[in-house]
Amino acid sequence: MATMAALFAKTPTPTHPFPNSSTTHFAKWSNLPVLGLTGTAGARRVPERRGISCSLIEPDGGKLVDLVAPPGLARDRWRREAAACPRINLSRIDLEWVHVLSEGWASPLRGFMREAEFLQTLHFSALRAADGSFVNMSVPIVLAIDDAQKRAIGEQRRVALVGPDNKPVAILSDIEIYKHNKEERIARTWGTTAPGLPYVEEAITNAGNWLIGGDLDVIEPIKYNDGLDQYRLSPAQLREEFSKRNADAVFAFQLRNPVHNGHALLMTDTRRRLLEMGYKNPILLLHPLGGYTKADDVPLSWRMKQHEKVLEEGVLNPETTVVAIFPSPMHYAGPTEVQWHAKSRINAGANFYIVGRDPAGMSHPTEKRDLYDADHGKKVLSMAPGLERLNILPFKVAAYDKTQMKMAFFDPSRPQDFLFISGTKMRTLAKNREDPPDGFMCPGGWKVLVEYYDSVASSEGSKLREAVPA
Amino acid sequence: MATMAALFAKTPTPTHPFPNSSTTHFAKWSNLPVLGLTGTAGARRVPERRGISCSLIEPDGGKLVDLVAPPGLARDRWRREAAACPRINLSRIDLEWVHVLSEGWASPLRGFMREAEFLQTLHFSALRAADGSFVNMSVPIVLAIDDAQKRAIGEQRRVALVGPDNKPVAILSDIEIYKHNKEERIARTWGTTAPGLPYVEEAITNAGNWLIGGDLDVIEPIKYNDGLDQYRLSPAQLREEFSKRNADAVFAFQLRNPVHNGHALLMTDTRRRLLEMGYKNPILLLHPLGGYTKADDVPLSWRMKQHEKVLEEGVLNPETTVVAIFPSPMHYAGPTEVQWHAKSRINAGANFYIVGRDPAGMSHPTEKRDLYDADHGKKVLSMAPGLERLNILPFKVAAYDKTQMKMAFFDPSRPQDFLFISGTKMRTLAKNREDPPDGFMCPGGWKVLVEYYDSVASSEGSKLREAVPA
Repeated sequence: MATMAALFAKTPTPTHPFPNSSTTHFAKWSNLPVLGLTGTAGARRVPERRGISCSLIEPDGGKLVDLVAPPGLARDRWRREAAACPRINLSRIDLEWVHVLSEGWASPLRGFMREAEFLQTLHFSALRAADGSFVNMSVPIVLAIDDAQKRAIGEQRRVALVGPDNKPVAILSDIEIYKHNKEERIARTWGTTAPGLPYVEEAITNAGNWLIGGDLDVIEPIKYNDGLDQYRLSPAQLREEFSKRNADAVFAFQLRNPVHNGHALLMTDTRRRLLEMGYKNPILLLHPLGGYTKADDVPLSWRMKQHEKVLEEGVLNPETTVVAIFPSPMHYAGPTEVQWHAKSRINAGANFYIVGRDPAGMSHPTEKRDLYDADHGKKVLSMAPGLERLNILPFKVAAYDKTQMKMAFFDPSRPQDFLFISGTKMRTLAKNREDPPDGFMCPGGWKVLVEYYDSVASSEGSKLREAVPA
Repeated sequence: MATMAALFAKTPTPTHPFPNSSTTHFAKWSNLPVLGLTGTAGARRVPERRGISCSLIEPDGGKLVDLVAPPGLARDRWRREAAACPRINLSRIDLEWVHVLSEGWASPLRGFMREAEFLQTLHFSALRAADGSFVNMSVPIVLAIDDAQKRAIGEQRRVALVGPDNKPVAILSDIEIYKHNKEERIARTWGTTAPGLPYVEEAITNAGNWLIGGDLDVIEPIKYNDGLDQYRLSPAQLREEFSKRNADAVFAFQLRNPVHNGHALLMTDTRRRLLEMGYKNPILLLHPLGGYTKADDVPLSWRMKQHEKVLEEGVLNPETTVVAIFPSPMHYAGPTEVQWHAKSRINAGANFYIVGRDPAGMSHPTEKRDLYDADHGKKVLSMAPGLERLNILPFKVAAYDKTQMKMAFFDPSRPQDFLFISGTKMRTLAKNREDPPDGFMCPGGWKVLVEYYDSVASSEGSKLREAVPA
């Protein structure tokens, strides 16, 4: 993976401050702020900024939240104080949320939600700031405890949060404990209560009947020691990287799947169009989700290997691409979740967000249909409170063009020339060690996928062998 | 009911323009704009207004929507045009929504929701206006059609809406037809998909799989010819009445139950406190809901008789009370619905809204608990986008004080002195022709309730007799 670290190269291109636009609908290319032409548009405010690092989009709430104690005495103090608090054991997903909160992805949120924040999230997908304005917040970031833990806390005002290795990772202060109405949480977040939603089964069904909110202080940066920590850049580190590269536009691409050449086409085409608009150095944030995913998604480590090949083989340009891991767990909550995916990237410095068909969607767990309408994600995203500053770029449909033998934007005037290769189809090919059409994915990337499915098959085989009585 | 018509008496008290305050939390009495003192508060904007009628709170969107054709030629024209359109038959509840829309209770909404409005309602409980600001809109106002109706409409751009008497009542223009995902609508509106929600069973379960939105033009005012139409005052008529009475504050009380003396205490106490704050003539809008209610609620006609007695017997002061019927159907959707109940009253001129325990709540249809947390309604209401201009007045708990032999505000220092008489208890007493404690409800009002339950019993008896074979 050393190759990928080298991708954080410096580019010498000078930068321009980019406008803090306030479209509430899709960024139509013709409507987007064009540098040098903003004066003619009239309505858009182009803030005067000094210095390159200030030119990135402001984080929600104006200041990036950072909840990690500085090295040294502060950490020692928190450790001592944690030792004196009631202990709450964190699940893997809880720890991922601690990570998310600690680095300010959810800015201005400063800890697990109290009831007022939880209710605003469920009802409005937005939190009201002190000045009356809204920041987007669509997914509840909450911590569940059970009756026994609630009793153990009693009247105490703070608790220690303990990691899977049994060491305290954080203190939650000025706590508020309130009812965890799981049914209502699920219904309002997913728009269904059907059994079989992956996040629900993993993190909610068996969770406690209370939620505990409060202000979070994290003792030291969250690390996973899985060989991938160097790609887990915080929003502050990403902003620093974009500034170093003199980015004058940052466009984010959220993904939890291998990158095929259709994705790549979309990303390179986005850059081309941003250049046409007058940006001098648009930078792509290729931002795979690194937290909990469902069992049949390709695991993070394999996806990272695949992304590495995509850059090594030049499908994406390392000079203008930053690859990093987004530490959030995945809800598969469609139009509700895509807002979280977009909002968190504002905090990381992105002012353009690419949204695809059925973002964060999946099949309905009990009916033969997709859970969400494929267009609702981008529609909801374009109207969401608190995302006015973000330019939403709807995904164009790419498919395999048999006449060109490569991925291309679908041309509705000659549908017979195009082949749609679904995720299921892709996985089936890779599992069966069959090759996709030339030009669907770079060869190195495809090889990683085939290796992954081989490893699954052999591990299933060994499990099967173990299951046979000796 | 002639007595009630007389309640719309004029009061000669001069008026003051009242401030257009922007609290986002509960109106604490100490924080409310006090006339003559607004300058000291600093933050509150007191708009300069000319003339008394302009002093009422502005409707959402700035202008009250009125979708009813003026008498004469316009109505004839709409009737002719309706005859040439595909016909959509309206259910009783659909017609109630046409009524609601036609008079501007849902201003600035101008017809049944198109998909963008529907999605914003489900996800944000608010619609974004052209200027980027939000108006509250928490309950979907939608019209369902089935596959056959959709086919019959084909490519036509408008449809006639036909009332239960088979006559066209309105035209829906510039229509948009989109999928009716019932599961998602129910989950996001009620926070549950459990079977047995009254509105769902009545209006959604068997409705068509498509929704049709568009601009509504209503041929003539909606009338029910049930002897109660004179109490169905439109928002415009209510505003006129408040202006005639020189109201300088209007406080609304939404209800769907008989008024007992605890309610009355709350309303008279609210007026007393508004007077203390410096308002000269606060007017109460006693506003029973008149649309669909579930089977075990007391029907509207009986409730109106009961309210009449409450005013006749002086429990509420007719001089400072306007009784009118709110034409909306009831969702029983708790914190989601209470926003609709509040927002629609802004459009009718109310700038204070009294909110009780568990507003618009009911028992969970399948579990032994209330569907909503009793405090969530007021919490959500206090944070809702688009309701910033409304002063929310949380309900104080009233109970029967055995030492005073009357309804009084509950005093937690002497709980043993108080008797809580639930709705169920009240109904059981009335059904059994037992008297409640003296001072619980005015005698005339109680008599109406007893008569109602007698009529139910005798009709059940007669049904029983009919069921016996001759």
